[in-house]
Parts: sequence; C-alpha cells; structure tokens
Amino acid sequence: MDFMTMMQTRKSIRSYEDKPVSREDLLKIVEVGRLTPSACNSQPWKFIVVDEPEAKAKVYDALQCSDGHSGCTWGNQVPAFIILVEEEAKVKPAVIAHYHDSQRFAQGDIGAACMNMCHMAMELGLSTCIVGMNEQKKMEDNLGIPEGKTVRLTLAVGYGIDVNPGFVKQRKPLEEVVSFNQW
Amino acid sequence: MDFMTMMQTRKSIRSYEDKPVSREDLLKIVEVGRLTPSACNSQPWKFIVVDEPEAKAKVYDALQCSDGHSGCTWGNQVPAFIILVEEEAKVKPAVIAHYHDSQRFAQGDIGAACMNMCHMAMELGLSTCIVGMNEQKKMEDNLGIPEGKTVRLTLAVGYGIDVNPGFVKQRKPLEEVVSFNQW
Repeated sequence: MDFMTMMQTRKSIRSYEDKPVSREDLLKIVEVGRLTPSACNSQPWKFIVVDEPEAKAKVYDALQCSDGHSGCTWGNQVPAFIILVEEEAKVKPAVIAHYHDSQRFAQGDIGAACMNMCHMAMELGLSTCIVGMNEQKKMEDNLGIPEGKTVRLTLAVGYGIDVNPGFVKQRKPLEEVVSFNQW
Repeated sequence: MDFMTMMQTRKSIRSYEDKPVSREDLLKIVEVGRLTPSACNSQPWKFIVVDEPEAKAKVYDALQCSDGHSGCTWGNQVPAFIILVEEEAKVKPAVIAHYHDSQRFAQGDIGAACMNMCHMAMELGLSTCIVGMNEQKKMEDNLGIPEGKTVRLTLAVGYGIDVNPGFVKQRKPLEEVVSFNQW
C-alpha cells in the first residue's frame, strides 16, 4: 500500500478479535520505533511490550485514572500493549545551551516513534489505537517503571474489529492549516 | 516500498540539488501532516510552506540562533521548508482535568505529523531533514508568526544529494530499548 493510502485509510480501532499478536510481529513494530529518527539521535525512549494477561491487566488498571477519567475504558480486551516511556535525551550541548532543556524534543520524537509503530502494525494486518492518558503513579507501581520516567503513550495493538466501517476521517480543511511563505 | 524498508533506508539529508520542489508535491506532503492522528483529534498544528527565495532566507536566518548555535548551517541551499507551528490543542475536558494542560500531547502529535511528512516526501523521491533548533523570536518576526506560538520543527525538503552513501544508521541495540511485561 502506498503511503498516502495508508494515511488516508488508517484509523484508530478500539475493538479487537480475541486473537494474540505474535511476538515476532510485536518486535517488528518495536523495530520501527527503534529506527525512528530523533533529535541528535538521542533515542529518548523505552518500549515495554505487554502481552501476558496479568501484565495487561496492570496496564489496563493504569489506564484508568484515579480521578475517574480514562482514554481506554475498552482496554480490558486488548491483545497487546506497547508502552512508550520517555528516557533522558542525550542531546548536543548546543540544544542545552539554547533551550536549557535536554528533553526539548523528546515528546516529538516519541510521537514519531509511535506513529511509525502504527504504520508497521497496519502493514502486518494489525490495528492500533494510541492512548495518551494514564495514571503515571499506577504505571510506575504496576510495571516497575522508575519514578519520574514519564509514560508518554500507550499503543494498543491487535487484530481489529471495525465496528464503524462507514467512518469518515474528520480533519480541519487544508486551507485552515497551511499557509505559504508567511503565517 | 514496504514500510519496514522505508524505515531502514530513510536518512536525513543536508545537501540538495538546485532544483525546486513542486507545489503539488509540497501539498501532498502537507496533506499527510493534515491527516495525522492527534490527541482528541485536536490537530494542534499549522504548516507554513516556504519555497520563495526571500522567505527561505528569512527561515534560514531564524534557524541561526542568536547565541551562535544552529542545527541548520547548511540551510541556505534548501529548496523548500515546511515549518510546523504548535497551535492550541482543543482536547477533551478529561485531559484538562487530569493533566491541567491542553498541550499535554501537542508535541507528540507534531512529531508524528513531521515523521509522516518525511515518509510522504520519500515516496515522492524527495529527501528531508528535520530541524529542531530555531530562534523563536526571529521566526515570529521574520514570518509573522503570532507571538508565543511555538515553532516546534522545521522540515527541509528537496531532491537530495547523498554525500555519504555508505552511512550506516546508528541506533541503540534492541535489547537496550525493549522489555517485556515489566520495566
């Protein structure tokens, strides 16, 4: 499938078949995350692949925020998760000198890695949904993530059930998001 | 080209042929940015396509930081730039309630959009380099970007000259970035 068609047809899926995803496929997905370009090649990420029932239940628990909110109420039937944790970015001294922040580009790098993982999954016949919200403390406690290492995104992966085949992607019109040669 | 091969072979290019990129191609690249998924479908971005000499010189100037640093010393021969500016993210109330920050996911969303634009460019036979550092104030002054709207990334686009064909992508080994079912 050409890339434009991938972009036009990809959609978030929140219902999955009760069918495991192979470790082989999960590692191909992680591999494109690993290969993702990053600021100063800092690779400020760690990927936690979660595919065992007990660990998945812990992830599901951590996706339910203690204030009652959740971006993943449907997460108790997800075949696999890949959690993207932000690591310290070893960037060039110029970045530190200019921004006084080693993590200036880390969130963008992680977003790019997660996007690439969605594309790889699609090519493998798998569906995904990127989940942003989580309860950081529960993630740390449930999965042994060191205190303060931020869980940025959680990717749900599985063989999708398309419960809304007529879905039309909603985006701002082009003219609202693009300009030429000035703001 | 399959997606894994795209990921394995894509590299940042900092030398370009003196050959313009068509508006048609630039708009295809912007289109995949526009189609990128984002938190709560907030689409927190604006894309400024810069392909005229005077405007390109203004971008090049803004990529030279006032403290003498630059991630784009080579930017005076780039055929086109696409600047990614962070917009206010209209996210769901749950995100605000939990994170007290409408922009919690905006940087990641913009990183994903920029990555997609690199892939689309590659499919069109174009090369890219993502430039992170810039002088925000110069970007605002030179391009009329409203004060405080952060320029997150600048994408250089053109027909690349591969001055280092033997380049081997350097990444952390897989075992360093992945774990299973726990940290």
